[in-house]
Amino acid sequence: MVGKVNFLLGIHNHQPVGNFEHVLEDAYQRAYKPFFEVFEKFDLKLTVHFTGWLLEWLKERHPEYLDRLKALVEAGRLEIATGGFYEPIIPVIPPGDRIDQIKLLTKFVEDNLNCSPRGMWLAERIWEPQIAKELAQAGVEYVVVDDNHFHWAGLHDDELVGYYVTEEEGHTLKIFPISKTLRYLIPFEPPERALEHLKQFVDSSGYKMQVMFDDGEKFGLWPGTYEHVYKKGWLKEFFGVLEATEWIEVKTFSEYIDSHPPAGRVYIPISSYVEMTEWALPSRAREKFENLLEDLKNRGEMEKYGMFLKGGIWRSFLAKYTEANLMHKKMLYVGKKIEECENEQKKREARKYYFMGQANDAYWHGVFGGLYLPHLREAIFSNLIKAETLLDGESSKVINLDVDCDGSDEIVVETPYYSFYLDPDYGGRIIELDYRTRYVNILNNLTRRYEPYHRKLREAVTAEELTRSGTTKTIHDVILAREEGLEKLLAYDWYERYAMIDHFLGWDTTLDKFERCEYSEQGDFVNQPYRVLKCSEKEIVLKRDGHVWVDSNWVPISLEKRLSLKDRGFRVTYIIGNGWTYPVELWFSVENNVSLLAPNAPDRYYTADGRKVGTMSSRGTVKARVFGVTDEYRKVSFKVVTTSPVEHWYFPVYTVSYSEAGFEKVYQCSSISTHFRIALEPGEFETLEFFVRLDEI
Amino acid sequence: MVGKVNFLLGIHNHQPVGNFEHVLEDAYQRAYKPFFEVFEKFDLKLTVHFTGWLLEWLKERHPEYLDRLKALVEAGRLEIATGGFYEPIIPVIPPGDRIDQIKLLTKFVEDNLNCSPRGMWLAERIWEPQIAKELAQAGVEYVVVDDNHFHWAGLHDDELVGYYVTEEEGHTLKIFPISKTLRYLIPFEPPERALEHLKQFVDSSGYKMQVMFDDGEKFGLWPGTYEHVYKKGWLKEFFGVLEATEWIEVKTFSEYIDSHPPAGRVYIPISSYVEMTEWALPSRAREKFENLLEDLKNRGEMEKYGMFLKGGIWRSFLAKYTEANLMHKKMLYVGKKIEECENEQKKREARKYYFMGQANDAYWHGVFGGLYLPHLREAIFSNLIKAETLLDGESSKVINLDVDCDGSDEIVVETPYYSFYLDPDYGGRIIELDYRTRYVNILNNLTRRYEPYHRKLREAVTAEELTRSGTTKTIHDVILAREEGLEKLLAYDWYERYAMIDHFLGWDTTLDKFERCEYSEQGDFVNQPYRVLKCSEKEIVLKRDGHVWVDSNWVPISLEKRLSLKDRGFRVTYIIGNGWTYPVELWFSVENNVSLLAPNAPDRYYTADGRKVGTMSSRGTVKARVFGVTDEYRKVSFKVVTTSPVEHWYFPVYTVSYSEAGFEKVYQCSSISTHFRIALEPGEFETLEFFVRLDEI
Repeated sequence: MVGKVNFLLGIHNHQPVGNFEHVLEDAYQRAYKPFFEVFEKFDLKLTVHFTGWLLEWLKERHPEYLDRLKALVEAGRLEIATGGFYEPIIPVIPPGDRIDQIKLLTKFVEDNLNCSPRGMWLAERIWEPQIAKELAQAGVEYVVVDDNHFHWAGLHDDELVGYYVTEEEGHTLKIFPISKTLRYLIPFEPPERALEHLKQFVDSSGYKMQVMFDDGEKFGLWPGTYEHVYKKGWLKEFFGVLEATEWIEVKTFSEYIDSHPPAGRVYIPISSYVEMTEWALPSRAREKFENLLEDLKNRGEMEKYGMFLKGGIWRSFLAKYTEANLMHKKMLYVGKKIEECENEQKKREARKYYFMGQANDAYWHGVFGGLYLPHLREAIFSNLIKAETLLDGESSKVINLDVDCDGSDEIVVETPYYSFYLDPDYGGRIIELDYRTRYVNILNNLTRRYEPYHRKLREAVTAEELTRSGTTKTIHDVILAREEGLEKLLAYDWYERYAMIDHFLGWDTTLDKFERCEYSEQGDFVNQPYRVLKCSEKEIVLKRDGHVWVDSNWVPISLEKRLSLKDRGFRVTYIIGNGWTYPVELWFSVENNVSLLAPNAPDRYYTADGRKVGTMSSRGTVKARVFGVTDEYRKVSFKVVTTSPVEHWYFPVYTVSYSEAGFEKVYQCSSISTHFRIALEPGEFETLEFFVRLDEI
Repeated sequence: MVGKVNFLLGIHNHQPVGNFEHVLEDAYQRAYKPFFEVFEKFDLKLTVHFTGWLLEWLKERHPEYLDRLKALVEAGRLEIATGGFYEPIIPVIPPGDRIDQIKLLTKFVEDNLNCSPRGMWLAERIWEPQIAKELAQAGVEYVVVDDNHFHWAGLHDDELVGYYVTEEEGHTLKIFPISKTLRYLIPFEPPERALEHLKQFVDSSGYKMQVMFDDGEKFGLWPGTYEHVYKKGWLKEFFGVLEATEWIEVKTFSEYIDSHPPAGRVYIPISSYVEMTEWALPSRAREKFENLLEDLKNRGEMEKYGMFLKGGIWRSFLAKYTEANLMHKKMLYVGKKIEECENEQKKREARKYYFMGQANDAYWHGVFGGLYLPHLREAIFSNLIKAETLLDGESSKVINLDVDCDGSDEIVVETPYYSFYLDPDYGGRIIELDYRTRYVNILNNLTRRYEPYHRKLREAVTAEELTRSGTTKTIHDVILAREEGLEKLLAYDWYERYAMIDHFLGWDTTLDKFERCEYSEQGDFVNQPYRVLKCSEKEIVLKRDGHVWVDSNWVPISLEKRLSLKDRGFRVTYIIGNGWTYPVELWFSVENNVSLLAPNAPDRYYTADGRKVGTMSSRGTVKARVFGVTDEYRKVSFKVVTTSPVEHWYFPVYTVSYSEAGFEKVYQCSSISTHFRIALEPGEFETLEFFVRLDEI
């Protein structure tokens, strides 16, 4: 039979805002550059997407690369796709921002690559049907998603041989399905395998098409791929075969659209690639889901029923990780401040940082580090704080506002120098504490949580072992570990690691037990609601009538927590009352977790009464009048000051998470707890005081 | 153990816009009224929702009923929930309309029932996460959905013992899960079964709750339930047991919220009850999905894996049924006209009809008739046309507009008297034809499609048989048929039943074959694209260079189709050309399907040259100069007028669909085809002409 199949090939190149310079340069040298060096030599067509932040970097560091792209565009061989400039998850940013982020990249492409993008790469292919409207409004004609998205709409592979049209509020958008088969074959299997797949779609009408559009980092940056794709010549061979095969027409997406009508109308549910929906599930459901997928694979029924198996939606990361939620809600909060700002110049400047604060990578966690990487979260916070500080200027306020959107108000304190969010409903803790002049949220912490992959820690192998085995398996298949003994670090927190946490400790508590979160908490204060007695510009007073276990008695204890706001910190006063008919002895401890990003950097250390105690990886107990941390890198310090020396405990908090390099330990924050032992007669109250000093240095 | 469980009971009462008066009265007498007659006698609390259209009807016909509700509200026993006034599917109407429809019902409740609703009933529990914003903006504090929605978010039943908080763009909303177990027990099983279920959630904290919120029609209107619920006293017994059981606290939703914090944060994917997601799937996928569910049930794994099994989303109905899509896009089109209207009074008036045109029932099809019921579709179209006519006034225009959002433009013709949409991309057909002064779309047709339940037609039993068996099974379990022999009516159309369809028939075509859509189509014109050669205020010219099979030869035939617009219809001119080197004989036929709602009503009939030929259920062939239909009920006629008598075929189009009363045949439209036999020499053209007369009568 004479016939042909259309093959649309696309590459998506992305680096997260806040990524290290050397990582970008490495990606350029090993993937972005060599890919095009090979591509140029063949008579083929390609569609490519670069996220804006990366494209800006390329323009600055490798302007010759943009010339190279421009030449291909001019030769009609290269189509450029747009997207959100800083690669936000489109459905979870406000509709207006969707349009503006896309227009920003479109403009950059127009200005620098001499072409006007018609299509869009959708970050992580996180689709929600309502975004069709803003995509269309931003001038996007088509978007490329997974075949999985279409399966979930009830379509079969044999129907996925063209693009479809979807709509929101009357705005239409064309959607192309990426073939998962091709995504797994390229570049991991011999080129012939991709050809065999394409061959099935050859027909005389010339209508049918297949799409491959995937991460450019697969071509050189993923473990083992540089060797495979370039040194062993996989890419050259693949392009050669495409060029030589008469029944394959390699087209850009726009070319295909201009010569073929849509295959039909479609409404796609909230979707992404299956793995993403697996990661987004709460852990208990995720384990069940993985079991189901495995069961069906074993029964050979995956093919048949896969289209009805759906994990979670991206938004669930916000319910699963408080840290992701806080970044997201901070972003929305800053967004509202921008909206309300009447100074157009400030507004414009703030928006740039605000948009950078929407970059998706830090907001979630799958097979890459993401949320588990403090420097990525830091990039989000510092950009958002930069935007906020610009907007707020010298204004001060203390307001009640549900800033984390949990259904009840927090107390939001904003001064020209610092700001913090106090959460009465969860232990009267502080969940964010910003040094506004340094753009630092010192509570950029992460709680240690169970992750279903922790079960696999034992099977993990180190990279050296993998290299020796000479495989080109993908990182979806192999379990790597960056170092040995990680399982010993696994510990899970029963409360969230923020600041101003009110503990009553059992007498057998040790630093070691406390560090592992396996001590006995005697009170019901840590994660329980406090009443707000006062909330003014000068002072905040919270109170909880709670209980503490004393010798098997559930003793009524009242705790009043006063924060008096000062220029460079706040005075804390606790009034603890014994509501029992017997005397009690209590071990009260206030815990502050602070994040200093690097555990072993010499410019970040503990200090006790002016002495350096050690870097953030150190642990121990110390008696001091002034104890805390100093960060010479970001130029801030956090100190607890008492009138006389008291005992402080300190230790680093590490998580064990999975990334493209395998299991790794990551320093998340440091716990500093300040200890008080008190004895109270029946009806007696004791007052404890200290000052939390927040200094620029 | 001393303890308790909170039980929140809700009832949702709804009637579709356009439903028959006698159906409403019956529902009132058999369900809405007796339910409260029983409820009043017990010391219990309840939450109730009435859709606005029903509440208006109740106010007019049974004002004493509203007094009864008011008294219960005043006694603190009844909470009223709001919703979209005309019960639209919230996620598929524009965001502004979501707010306005809800505010409309809230206002009505405030004005007539002396209370301000805090909660909302979500039509068909069609949830999409972004609607949280408009719900919150409309003043809704909480919404009630299925436990299924939460399962799909990865939550387990043991976590569904409180309400959750969700959020969109910083707007928070509380969400309650309805227990499916309770929904299936009440009122079908003995009250003790519901008690057994509730008992599991009793605990000393008093925190846990369970929700039952379901259709009020289950209490008296569903087959067999009047007897069961009232005559046999099920409801009295149930309420008695609730009242007498000390460990059950029957609360309203607001009472529960006011005394209990949320159980957590949640982001719910697009969801509805499982059955809805089954119905919404394309038929091929739906069959597979049903098989999977059955397999898992047989393996006893449904419980374990059910949370990951997801069918389609409601929006898919719009892709599945062109008819639903056309209503939906007409609605959006009229909505835009309202937005653009500058006359506030017209705008206000038009909005009322426009909102009625958003009533959900006609837009989809599950276990009730819905889309398959012409009078419900008619209600949608007539309201939308009313709104549109009000807005357009005396203006005329012919524009290119993608009115059905398929990605390419239709030709939209609007005159003060009629309007129509011509679709060049699909056979140059007409997909809507409105008599604007009568608010009638004569093309309110429905195509005969395969529905997976057609396989079950053989197992169906009649209602008499069911009654004899004395069961109280739900309509989810039993297959009923309203009459025998329905399987003989099953026929499937390969093209969609609209107007101005250009056929080339095989010589063996008979009326019977044509009626069953099992004839041989020789041309490639019916559903293929036409070029637009001219599009002006006076004339539209389309052309297709297509093919017709002539004795196993695929002969090039050109067809030009001119529509000259007149005041009361349009003149149609066909120019058919033979592009072959041999002479050909062709059987050309133009088909118009028109909908007259009732097959046997004496006021709707065919006429041929002034004679009545028969009602819409009649079929046959006739030779006439003027042939068509007259509708004395809606006061319109549709006639094809030729210069000399030609042959016309006519027959009724019935579908076989499933509703709460079982399988039934429904008259959808009538096919009128006008036949021409032509002979063409090589290169020769023939011109055919007729007039389509659209009269008010």
